[in-house]
Amino acid sequence: MFAEILKKVVDNVDGGLGAVVMGLDGIPVETYTRQADRVDITTIGMEFSFILTQVRKASESVKVGAFEEMSVKADSLVVVFRMLSPQYFLGVAIASDGNFGKCRYLMRLAAPKLVAEL
Amino acid sequence: MFAEILKKVVDNVDGGLGAVVMGLDGIPVETYTRQADRVDITTIGMEFSFILTQVRKASESVKVGAFEEMSVKADSLVVVFRMLSPQYFLGVAIASDGNFGKCRYLMRLAAPKLVAEL
Repeated sequence: MFAEILKKVVDNVDGGLGAVVMGLDGIPVETYTRQADRVDITTIGMEFSFILTQVRKASESVKVGAFEEMSVKADSLVVVFRMLSPQYFLGVAIASDGNFGKCRYLMRLAAPKLVAEL
Repeated sequence: MFAEILKKVVDNVDGGLGAVVMGLDGIPVETYTRQADRVDITTIGMEFSFILTQVRKASESVKVGAFEEMSVKADSLVVVFRMLSPQYFLGVAIASDGNFGKCRYLMRLAAPKLVAEL
């Protein structure tokens, strides 16, 4: 199920904090939080669901093909988003000194499993 | 000057296509294009300037510290954005099979030089 897959991604990344599967409408399907005091993954997902919609539109507008992945680095956090379908995405938050490369890699591995459950 | 710094980043990344220094208002300061037929870096920058403004607001809203960097991967292109100041950003486009890690690295190196020119 979703929760197991999310846990596997977050717990296996250095600095992994939490993950969410969410619709572009900002409604979460499942969340997993490793360090609840450090990150509110649902709020982050909601804030970025609107932005992901805009990025998808911008990608269509500049004709660069289907939008797949976005990452945002702030001072204390990195969030990586991966589209699972035109309507759903996976979002994973890690500490800013966490393993960004491994996070993207595990998200790529997890995506088809999540898609199969959607 | 800006153009030299942009050229140095784009030409030294496998798959590097073009770069822009732009204001969040979508007005370009300088652009450099290595493969003009493959990418319209000004249009990409303009489309994403609005999104970067939204990301900055979202980062403030979820209190994750200053927004530093964003990357977007689409089917045929990866675009990396790095904030240079609260108003200006550097955007670099590479092919989707280009060297994303080196692109981010060279952008980090270039940023202070660009900031010094702003």
